[in-house]
Amino acid sequence: MSEDAPTHPDLAADSSIHDAEGRLSADWLDALRAEIAAGDRARLIERMAPLHESETGDVIEALTADERVALVTLLGDEFDFLALTEVDDSVRIELMESLPNADIARGVADLDSDDAVYILEDLDQDDRDEILSQMPAFERISLKRSLDFPEDSAGRRMQTDFIAIPPFWTVGQTIDYLRTNDDLPDDFYQLYVIDPGYNLLGTIPLDRILRAQRATRVQDIMNTQVRQIEATLDQEEAARIFERYDQIEVAVVDESQRLVGVLTIDDIVDVITEEANEDIHRLGGVGDEDISKTVPGVVRSRATWLLVNLGTATLASLVIGLFDATIEQMVALAVLMPIVASMGGVAGTQTMTVTVRAISQRELDKNNAKRLISRELLVGLTNGAIFAVLLGLITAFRFSNPALGVVIGAAMVVNMIVAGGCGILIPMGLDKLKIDPAVASSTFVMTLTDVVGFFAFLTLAGWWFGLF
Amino acid sequence: MSEDAPTHPDLAADSSIHDAEGRLSADWLDALRAEIAAGDRARLIERMAPLHESETGDVIEALTADERVALVTLLGDEFDFLALTEVDDSVRIELMESLPNADIARGVADLDSDDAVYILEDLDQDDRDEILSQMPAFERISLKRSLDFPEDSAGRRMQTDFIAIPPFWTVGQTIDYLRTNDDLPDDFYQLYVIDPGYNLLGTIPLDRILRAQRATRVQDIMNTQVRQIEATLDQEEAARIFERYDQIEVAVVDESQRLVGVLTIDDIVDVITEEANEDIHRLGGVGDEDISKTVPGVVRSRATWLLVNLGTATLASLVIGLFDATIEQMVALAVLMPIVASMGGVAGTQTMTVTVRAISQRELDKNNAKRLISRELLVGLTNGAIFAVLLGLITAFRFSNPALGVVIGAAMVVNMIVAGGCGILIPMGLDKLKIDPAVASSTFVMTLTDVVGFFAFLTLAGWWFGLF
Repeated sequence: MSEDAPTHPDLAADSSIHDAEGRLSADWLDALRAEIAAGDRARLIERMAPLHESETGDVIEALTADERVALVTLLGDEFDFLALTEVDDSVRIELMESLPNADIARGVADLDSDDAVYILEDLDQDDRDEILSQMPAFERISLKRSLDFPEDSAGRRMQTDFIAIPPFWTVGQTIDYLRTNDDLPDDFYQLYVIDPGYNLLGTIPLDRILRAQRATRVQDIMNTQVRQIEATLDQEEAARIFERYDQIEVAVVDESQRLVGVLTIDDIVDVITEEANEDIHRLGGVGDEDISKTVPGVVRSRATWLLVNLGTATLASLVIGLFDATIEQMVALAVLMPIVASMGGVAGTQTMTVTVRAISQRELDKNNAKRLISRELLVGLTNGAIFAVLLGLITAFRFSNPALGVVIGAAMVVNMIVAGGCGILIPMGLDKLKIDPAVASSTFVMTLTDVVGFFAFLTLAGWWFGLF
Repeated sequence: MSEDAPTHPDLAADSSIHDAEGRLSADWLDALRAEIAAGDRARLIERMAPLHESETGDVIEALTADERVALVTLLGDEFDFLALTEVDDSVRIELMESLPNADIARGVADLDSDDAVYILEDLDQDDRDEILSQMPAFERISLKRSLDFPEDSAGRRMQTDFIAIPPFWTVGQTIDYLRTNDDLPDDFYQLYVIDPGYNLLGTIPLDRILRAQRATRVQDIMNTQVRQIEATLDQEEAARIFERYDQIEVAVVDESQRLVGVLTIDDIVDVITEEANEDIHRLGGVGDEDISKTVPGVVRSRATWLLVNLGTATLASLVIGLFDATIEQMVALAVLMPIVASMGGVAGTQTMTVTVRAISQRELDKNNAKRLISRELLVGLTNGAIFAVLLGLITAFRFSNPALGVVIGAAMVVNMIVAGGCGILIPMGLDKLKIDPAVASSTFVMTLTDVVGFFAFLTLAGWWFGLF
């Protein structure tokens, strides 16, 4: 974004809160901290008022837990709860637990339904019920309906405020309705044409209303090829529909096909980013973690995976243990064996990474599975052969032992083919069993490549050199 | 999406191309293949016509290279080039190279400028120039301007077709203009208010036009807090602005602040998905790769990383080699050493994953760096201590050697702290050096945890048991 254009007031306002690199300015934060410590409500309001909710979110994340509560309490009704949709989950949950439920009820009542649900859904049932009971009836009912849909479903992410019109209206009537009605959603991109039973008949993007003559009937210009999403559909599937069909807004219907809300692209962008974070974190062996989490939480979220790895590494070590007599006779084997295992680990991770992402993007199906499996086996064979020669030569010279070079080369080929095969078959198998391949594939792939790497190398060596 | 709603014709049309799981139906594909082989143009047109461009893209990906060319050639003018924006890069590039440039010029001329640029940008300069020279002047100039901006910039992704109006128009004039002008973009969500020099004065979302009275002046209802993006800005930075400020469309300006195009959210969704894929692939040690790539391309894209790993694994092996006399005296060390290295590798990967993703999401900055570094060191210490006790006990029993348990436990603590430190400091350092931390962090982290793991364990053992 241009930083110096004088005609854009919001950018000028930003310049003091952001430093030259566009990050939160340390000076600005220090001043804020001082005002919080002094309890200077008037200056705090003045300081926070020009911020966009995402900037307020950044500020909240930069503060300590105590400062956050103090800031929100001092700002009172001037605090925009929308900012809470922009902070890490752990920050939001901790802050919400420190605030009185009455304050939350007041703050959340002003929000769009999708944002209110986003904030309320992580609270425990009792707090949530208490907050809902303190809200106006209309908001309470619509929030309850959203919250009744399963977690991570389209129903949770939808906005319940939308504009529905009958098919027999004219464009003129529609425009007049929009001009005179004060109770419209904040932003909208299309209108929904429904029958008296709230079944969706069609949609009209706003530009089509603007291009049409006033006398035109809505039913003659509406888009009848509507895409609609069941409220119980998983949000990731919903995101896929937005991506495939380049939608801005999609209608959400309940089990009797009645229109209950709309999903908008800005929520979907968050879903896509969240999903990518989840894939990356799971592949990296970290659970539900964000950078605001504190030490005990992080220790817990990572210990599971470390424990699993302790088990699998011990298994690999047991395999090596089978060959201790062999190693005792030829210690070079101990020096070399981690190379074979590590190359297999990298090759397996490569195949697994591509496979896991293809599965999560719904790109891998029956039509290309066979082709991909043979591709990966062939890639394993080819790279196995290339690096077998390379490592074989290095080893032959390093230990002045050509036979050892041949043995390690052969073990490398075996391990790389196994790595390619496991790298694709394990994630596909887990997916078939409805287990997220991003979570579990790594362990299996690494264990198998370690075990096969050690076993192939030590067996071949023992056999070749007659060490058994 | 509901599959059985009888009121939605497009879903009914889909049902034959998709199987019960919503994937491409094998029967449908076989029938298509037969028609391609028979060169039955009329039936092919009938079969492909009802498909959405993303479905056409799926079909193209499922075919062989020869079938793709045959299909596009047979369809001729009936082939919608928009489908090429929906296929993997490797498929698109291969197909484009097999098609006559004249056909491409004709097909691309019908597209929106952003889609045309997306298809043309990967071609080599000569082909691109030839195709452009065969296009109508207006399209040629606008495409050339976009293609002159750097790769992956906002200028490449922008749509050059937008609606600009003067500030003194009334809402009525604007609506009349939209009603009578046939040459409007296909879809639009806001209007741009400009001065005679094409400087942006404000924006008006369509819903605001619809809510306003006809006599209202545009300048009185326009949004003057406009966000605009320089055309040379990187597309990922542009995506960040959309995410932060929940935008649907953002103006793109050239270096003299003149409005040259608009970026829309559907292109940004693709950028976000692409960026996530890139992060995941790079962390997994794979380059620019998609599932349509053939064996030679995949071998090449993975060999680099395998070669790097061969080097670092050899380094780790050299470290072990320093201790061969020690291992010879106590072969249990060879059996156990991979466990220490592997635990360090997992802990390092965990920290690195969280750090790399936080950097690419611009969540890590000066304000939280210190806190995060000490958090990771503390997590390393804590998990190190926990697993030191566990592994120490297992080892003491397995080898009936309590001292060996103490040694391996101590090595574990050292390695886990090093893993935590490297896991955060290496990506941060690479980012400072303007190297993408997703590409290079893994190598460094794994090498360091391997080397430190082997070294710490073997040194401590040698010293404790007096084996040097």
